[in-house]
Amino acid sequence: MSAARLVRLADLAGVALFAAEGAMVALAAGLDLLGILVLAFTTALGGGVVRDVLLGATPPDALRGWHYPALAFAAGAAVILAHGAVPQFPPMLVITLDAAGLALFAVAGTQKALSAAMQPFVATLLGTITGVGGGVIRDVLLAQVPRVLNADIYASAAFAGAVVLVAARRCGASPALAGIAGGLACFSLRMFAARYGWHLPRPGWL
Amino acid sequence: MSAARLVRLADLAGVALFAAEGAMVALAAGLDLLGILVLAFTTALGGGVVRDVLLGATPPDALRGWHYPALAFAAGAAVILAHGAVPQFPPMLVITLDAAGLALFAVAGTQKALSAAMQPFVATLLGTITGVGGGVIRDVLLAQVPRVLNADIYASAAFAGAVVLVAARRCGASPALAGIAGGLACFSLRMFAARYGWHLPRPGWL
Amino acid sequence: MSAARLVRLADLAGVALFAAEGAMVALAAGLDLLGILVLAFTTALGGGVVRDVLLGATPPDALRGWHYPALAFAAGAAVILAHGAVPQFPPMLVITLDAAGLALFAVAGTQKALSAAMQPFVATLLGTITGVGGGVIRDVLLAQVPRVLNADIYASAAFAGAVVLVAARRCGASPALAGIAGGLACFSLRMFAARYGWHLPRPGWL
Repeated sequence: MSAARLVRLADLAGVALFAAEGAMVALAAGLDLLGILVLAFTTALGGGVVRDVLLGATPPDALRGWHYPALAFAAGAAVILAHGAVPQFPPMLVITLDAAGLALFAVAGTQKALSAAMQPFVATLLGTITGVGGGVIRDVLLAQVPRVLNADIYASAAFAGAVVLVAARRCGASPALAGIAGGLACFSLRMFAARYGWHLPRPGWL
Repeated sequence: MSAARLVRLADLAGVALFAAEGAMVALAAGLDLLGILVLAFTTALGGGVVRDVLLGATPPDALRGWHYPALAFAAGAAVILAHGAVPQFPPMLVITLDAAGLALFAVAGTQKALSAAMQPFVATLLGTITGVGGGVIRDVLLAQVPRVLNADIYASAAFAGAVVLVAARRCGASPALAGIAGGLACFSLRMFAARYGWHLPRPGWL
Repeated sequence: MSAARLVRLADLAGVALFAAEGAMVALAAGLDLLGILVLAFTTALGGGVVRDVLLGATPPDALRGWHYPALAFAAGAAVILAHGAVPQFPPMLVITLDAAGLALFAVAGTQKALSAAMQPFVATLLGTITGVGGGVIRDVLLAQVPRVLNADIYASAAFAGAVVLVAARRCGASPALAGIAGGLACFSLRMFAARYGWHLPRPGWL
């Protein structure tokens, strides 16, 4: 399988995972069918859309064809149907899928920003935005403070993965290898933080 | 009257209607004069601005001259003045004007996305965003869950109108005819839903 | 010191002031370290990013190098450290720094919009958005109604400064002189309003 095909598959997997997660959050918030599909779409594609708008790469990838929106809606619809059969999704499954989506998006966003000749530190920020932006927009639409601002090691895991990727490429690693290293760093940091309840300090604790 | 002139008039009517509606919502929320004008502006122009940013058509139409912002502010100011005379706006009037604005914006947004060579399904999404985007930003600024996510058949009416428009054009209808068909579909679906209290199901009802 | 250098310095000062203010608000809201840095970044750079996206000037100035983001993060970190030593920042200091930042940003945003050949009234709107946009995004992320919609003479001070700038330039003043006049108008209007508790009327008061 070629590298480009691998990236494409990883990206589609991230979209499906995040869309499913957005639909679960919308279900829990009691939205109607349309609201659930909108949050699936927003959670899955919002981060990449913001990245592309900031890069000036418009129309965003997510809107260059029907594939991404259709996939996000399909994943949202699947959650609605599964909800009838399985009212409670296992939390560890949700966390694991979400960590995988986060890693995939942070890596894809950082790579795209580097390809657009952004300065490396800025590329790590854009990678982080790609990873967490969809969830931030989803939480804003639910009139809640975005979890990533206040909850756990989440955006920091995306940022750490982006830094590993950029550092690896500057040390001469191929894009594919650097992407795998960054993605693993993000995924494992997020999973350890979720498993062991790691948090960033609040200033009162200093 | 030429077709272009008709589209232009319809667009201006939609801006005035949505600006007036945004000002009414801001009045009810107890904002000050500036807040009311800002919400009039945002409700009227937000959807089109988001559409144009996503299409990469910047500066957005709404900012290419003073006409659109001035019209939105004027409509907001008219509501403030009328409020002194008529403290209560008749709900059915507000709903009807709003449905007309929604139909005009959904049609205009879908047509513009098709003109920008967007894929038809994506064009229906951009038409829907044009119709509901301003109201979503208004509700976010009021720290509320956007009504369109949770209330009635509203965004779905915009989407249905956009689908009718795209389908009519693919069947060979002229842009003008397709726009009229899509606009009527959106307007009448929205009005029936408001009149008879139609709602989209919530998954618990499945 | 050349005019370009002066503008650059004023811009950097505005970024540092707004980032510090965003960090103080985030501290008061009880966010964690990452949340504080994100709000510092957003408050400082959000207005300019929105302006540049609307102008189609992407990537935005704030992301064309590491300087702006690094400065915003450094100012946020400085607030976190100072917080250990000085738990309470004097309100009048915060208000004065904020008014200075507002004036700098409103002037810079209006000048940039005029340079991009925007219509003068639209340029005043874009200057206002540059001044208040970061704070609006910060408040939305905190799930609060943006203060500028409901509190005092704040966005109106930015708008007044932008109008003074545009009027001065149309009367033949140099960009530097017009900028100083607009900035002083914004700063002094904001300071008088804060000192004497001036508010915009609410429609019930009419």
